[in-house]
Amino acid sequence: MKIAIIGSGNVAWHLAQALDKSGNKITEIYSRNIANAKKLCSKLYDAHATDSLDFAASQASVFIISVPDNALSEVAQQAYFPENAIVVHTSGTLAMSQLETANTNQIGVFYPLQTFTKSKPVDFKTIPICIEASDTKTEKTLEKLAFSICENVCFYDSEDRKKLHLAAVFACNFTNFMLIKAKTILENEDLSFDVLKPLIRETIEKALELGPENAQTGPAIRKDTKTVQKHLDLLNQQPEIQKIYQLISEQIMKQK
Amino acid sequence: MKIAIIGSGNVAWHLAQALDKSGNKITEIYSRNIANAKKLCSKLYDAHATDSLDFAASQASVFIISVPDNALSEVAQQAYFPENAIVVHTSGTLAMSQLETANTNQIGVFYPLQTFTKSKPVDFKTIPICIEASDTKTEKTLEKLAFSICENVCFYDSEDRKKLHLAAVFACNFTNFMLIKAKTILENEDLSFDVLKPLIRETIEKALELGPENAQTGPAIRKDTKTVQKHLDLLNQQPEIQKIYQLISEQIMKQK
Repeated sequence: MKIAIIGSGNVAWHLAQALDKSGNKITEIYSRNIANAKKLCSKLYDAHATDSLDFAASQASVFIISVPDNALSEVAQQAYFPENAIVVHTSGTLAMSQLETANTNQIGVFYPLQTFTKSKPVDFKTIPICIEASDTKTEKTLEKLAFSICENVCFYDSEDRKKLHLAAVFACNFTNFMLIKAKTILENEDLSFDVLKPLIRETIEKALELGPENAQTGPAIRKDTKTVQKHLDLLNQQPEIQKIYQLISEQIMKQK
Repeated sequence: MKIAIIGSGNVAWHLAQALDKSGNKITEIYSRNIANAKKLCSKLYDAHATDSLDFAASQASVFIISVPDNALSEVAQQAYFPENAIVVHTSGTLAMSQLETANTNQIGVFYPLQTFTKSKPVDFKTIPICIEASDTKTEKTLEKLAFSICENVCFYDSEDRKKLHLAAVFACNFTNFMLIKAKTILENEDLSFDVLKPLIRETIEKALELGPENAQTGPAIRKDTKTVQKHLDLLNQQPEIQKIYQLISEQIMKQK
């Protein structure tokens, strides 16, 4: 398939390369900042960098818009797509209907449920790609495109995808934040974060195997309020983190 | 080495079995509730279950007390240990000095930094065991004992171990709590938690590889306040979880 990618952020960066490698052709990479588009194009077989949203002459049949959520509807409106173009976005939160401003009726969502950072390669094979489409024909095309890079295609409507994205924030972004805090606590005492790595790996493996609701350990689930209080005292100098510790511990205590 | 274990909770359960398998001899398992001690003994080569804290006739040279933190100092005081006994506890939070009530001068800490749940076997080899001791001879004995079951022995004094335990609560217990919340959000909509598993695994691998401070993604770090607000709205029916979402997001926004 021939595909144009609008955007050059973390998602666009990895998605473009995965599609390129799997035998699809990336025709254009758009970025407001042409240097970013060129950087991504240099990783691809034969894509053209552009800072124009006029795609009238593009060979692409699918246009993937992967820009910050607050820019999406404006970009969709400003762009000019060729006849019969399929236009999709990659956002977990935004409804498909945000693309109704585009000059096409074939719209959809192509949301890879993963955390992307440019400096770390990802294996798309295991990533679930969540699809929504305006019509069956478009859905089939997007499904085929998704299966060209991954083995796990799922179908979510805009409402369910919002909940999925919210759950992903807890499972990924907030989990990572907890690791940042753990590392900061240790580094403030010149202690190494490495000692926690086996614990972190086991925490996740156990939660995925038993279900996290059966894997909770620690002072709060034991209702060990003395230890919880000692920890709160240790966090005295960081009132916001102390508050987070307290609220989460209260919630864990309510679990059983 | 001959070892008696006082306690039959999650830590005692796994530690006793690991020591038993590695060629040490577990002489006694103590529990207030003899049935629990017997259950653990049934997993061991030739250990004796007891609900008496009188160890005057015990063959053990090392006594590992693994009871809830709030019971430790009472248990240490009530127990009677044979001459020259080494008495240690397994708590991350409690100071070694909590054992000064025991009738021995050789005391220490033997803290395996891991999350233990009875139903899930663990591989001790990769687990860091954190040691503290009242004197060099005791330290050498504990080090030898630790190396008999693991490959990673570290030395922390009581102050540093407290910080380590606090960090572990963030890295393990709070991380698991975030996974519980993610699962609950999905199950409330009849959506499967399985779809998040590749994301969760990648989140952890990325954080351990790049460092969590270089791996943060999501709406908060992008300062995407619109999405943050939408998520807060979705959590309207759960004010405590909403508050946790808000506080963590504020902290993430401050990261860069």
